[in-house]
Amino acid sequence: MGFVKTPVKGMNDFLPRDMELRQKALSMIRETYAAFGFREIETPCMEHIENLTGKQGGENEKLIFKVLKRGAALSRALEKGDELADSGMRYDLTLPLSRFYAANSATLPSPFKALQIGNVWRADQPQKGRFRQFTQCDIDILGDASILAEIELVGATGNMLAKLLAGTGIGGFTIHINDRRILRAMALSVGFPEENLENVFIILDKLDKIGTEGVKAELLAEGLAEQAVNAYTAIFEKDSSVSVSEFCSFLSEEFLDRKVPEGLDTILACVAKTLDGKAKLKFDPTLVRGMGYYTGTIFEVKLDEYNFSIAGGGRYDEMIGKFSGQAVPACGFSIGFERIITILRDHPAAENGEGGKVAFLVAGGMSEEKLQEIFLRAADLRAEGKTVTVLPLKKNAKFQIDRLMEDGFTQIERIYND
Amino acid sequence: MGFVKTPVKGMNDFLPRDMELRQKALSMIRETYAAFGFREIETPCMEHIENLTGKQGGENEKLIFKVLKRGAALSRALEKGDELADSGMRYDLTLPLSRFYAANSATLPSPFKALQIGNVWRADQPQKGRFRQFTQCDIDILGDASILAEIELVGATGNMLAKLLAGTGIGGFTIHINDRRILRAMALSVGFPEENLENVFIILDKLDKIGTEGVKAELLAEGLAEQAVNAYTAIFEKDSSVSVSEFCSFLSEEFLDRKVPEGLDTILACVAKTLDGKAKLKFDPTLVRGMGYYTGTIFEVKLDEYNFSIAGGGRYDEMIGKFSGQAVPACGFSIGFERIITILRDHPAAENGEGGKVAFLVAGGMSEEKLQEIFLRAADLRAEGKTVTVLPLKKNAKFQIDRLMEDGFTQIERIYND
Repeated sequence: MGFVKTPVKGMNDFLPRDMELRQKALSMIRETYAAFGFREIETPCMEHIENLTGKQGGENEKLIFKVLKRGAALSRALEKGDELADSGMRYDLTLPLSRFYAANSATLPSPFKALQIGNVWRADQPQKGRFRQFTQCDIDILGDASILAEIELVGATGNMLAKLLAGTGIGGFTIHINDRRILRAMALSVGFPEENLENVFIILDKLDKIGTEGVKAELLAEGLAEQAVNAYTAIFEKDSSVSVSEFCSFLSEEFLDRKVPEGLDTILACVAKTLDGKAKLKFDPTLVRGMGYYTGTIFEVKLDEYNFSIAGGGRYDEMIGKFSGQAVPACGFSIGFERIITILRDHPAAENGEGGKVAFLVAGGMSEEKLQEIFLRAADLRAEGKTVTVLPLKKNAKFQIDRLMEDGFTQIERIYND
Repeated sequence: MGFVKTPVKGMNDFLPRDMELRQKALSMIRETYAAFGFREIETPCMEHIENLTGKQGGENEKLIFKVLKRGAALSRALEKGDELADSGMRYDLTLPLSRFYAANSATLPSPFKALQIGNVWRADQPQKGRFRQFTQCDIDILGDASILAEIELVGATGNMLAKLLAGTGIGGFTIHINDRRILRAMALSVGFPEENLENVFIILDKLDKIGTEGVKAELLAEGLAEQAVNAYTAIFEKDSSVSVSEFCSFLSEEFLDRKVPEGLDTILACVAKTLDGKAKLKFDPTLVRGMGYYTGTIFEVKLDEYNFSIAGGGRYDEMIGKFSGQAVPACGFSIGFERIITILRDHPAAENGEGGKVAFLVAGGMSEEKLQEIFLRAADLRAEGKTVTVLPLKKNAKFQIDRLMEDGFTQIERIYND
């Protein structure tokens, strides 16, 4: 009957050990975000195919797992050569959030602080660390145009990550903050034309990898004037550890509203209070964040000892409206859940030895009275908060016991007939 | 661009209130089952189409959401008129468990006590309480042929349900237990032919609804001899509150191995110790459980004040082998998660008022110093375990405050500029 034992290509089976780590992380995430007033919502894993292919998903729209129509609708579609799918698997949690908000905003508080944890699917070529089904974890504040949204999002994510990484030896992390409006102002101030900006940002985004000389070379190759290019890269040689307002003082009001750097300074100062030293915070004028839909502040979290990002986000005031026709200011922060799990798996936190795990290994042919006694003892131990498993004693008891010890059982009792 | 606001047909958006209830229930379920040594696993939501359509899924195979092939594979399939799907959404958690066990049994303990919580999909006609995406929650013990498996499964489920329903006023519940081998023996002992048994059980299953006379009439309509039918229904008039062994004493060894009722008596006695009065337990010779794959004990949980089932399960020693080619004794218990959530929603448990929820409503144009102070106070309150949300003060403050009070905020503070 052609039974296939492996999971579908690019998707994972999670063993008990994997799940323990994932669930522990998820509990910590839920708990921390709840303390900041974020409230969890959930949408179906499938979305209408019209919504998924509405040109708001960029490259992800090429990676949709489409769900086939059924019955007469499928026959009709095949006959007429119509679209064969009526729905598809969601490729992110932002599109479903937009639809959810459009459908439910009347009954939701405003601003609405949402937490979403869920699987998304992308028919990408599978590779190390990239899966076709993976978990995303997003917080978003909809309906708040003020910087309170940024402060809450960054503070909550910083606190959550500090808790998640505590005791693992992974080391600290830094939250980088910038603003798309500052990015634009810097580029326009040296005379780069508007139409080159997206490419300029793509090049600047490689600064870490190719260095200042590399960025210069690519900007020149883009056809930009040498003088402008030199002026531009000189900006990033400036000390950015001063206040954002001070750093931006060279940008005239023509290019940048003073309120933008002032707001960023306030965000930095207030998040510092929320974090209370648990994470570093930094204005980073070179931070770009690839997504074109950001309209204001952008953030990214990098591990200090590994040069990669584990979370990112920003303000996207125009996106919800594009989906739902209703303009709504919005700001969000998304953690790279699978990436974080991979790091946590490689850096197990010290066991806290809570509870205690007990195994009763029961020999065959036990009398009913003796069995009752065993299950009563198990019930009592469970009432004390212990994990108790009652299992048949195997012929190869040594192997069975070794295995249980590996799984963290510290009290293993063999019970024979008297 | 044809944006559709409603979720895909038959699927649900869960609002914050829905999610709070669901997550609270899931935490309780995870915690209780973990105390019994069950370990959570997870499989992808999609399975190979060959596995889903392997004739083990019964009626559910007609309800599969199929996932379209992509790229060149799709073009080829369309050209040749081949199967258009390469995978589909799982319709239950048992088929994936079989595949998971076949793929991973070498690294899993034996017996393996699995907990699975996950969504399944069925393209059923949506109706009240029946959805096209819904959560299943199963525990299974694989590789244990002894009655220890039944005792652990029933004890764990009974304890878990007692915890879930506590304080809701829903009232008690009763765990009904029977054995397919006793069902068979009763029917064979009165002379019903083997080939009629499945239909006999389908008719007996309606006893609750159509009464003894109704069952008699349907059995006669099935063409069974009147004397046999009378003898059969007389069995169910007998007192079943005695021990199972005593109840079954009229069945000769030819039809029933004595060890079956003795085993059931031991299961009942030991589960009683595990439950410690938290739930009622009852041998029910009329319990059938529809699924043909059960091979031994069967269980069902019914609410005392509502005549419907909220959980069911049993032993299915031959099923895993059919999928995976590897014979593995298996026994499982599945709760009707969506049904339980519906009941819980209609019977909210008394609030325990834990933690406390605080909202700071901040007027516009606040100074940076004042804002820092606010976020510092928020951080301190969160460190005390409180939920704190910092929001912009809306023009319609009264509406905003009423709404927050509805959402359980007990301390709401308006903060203005000095």
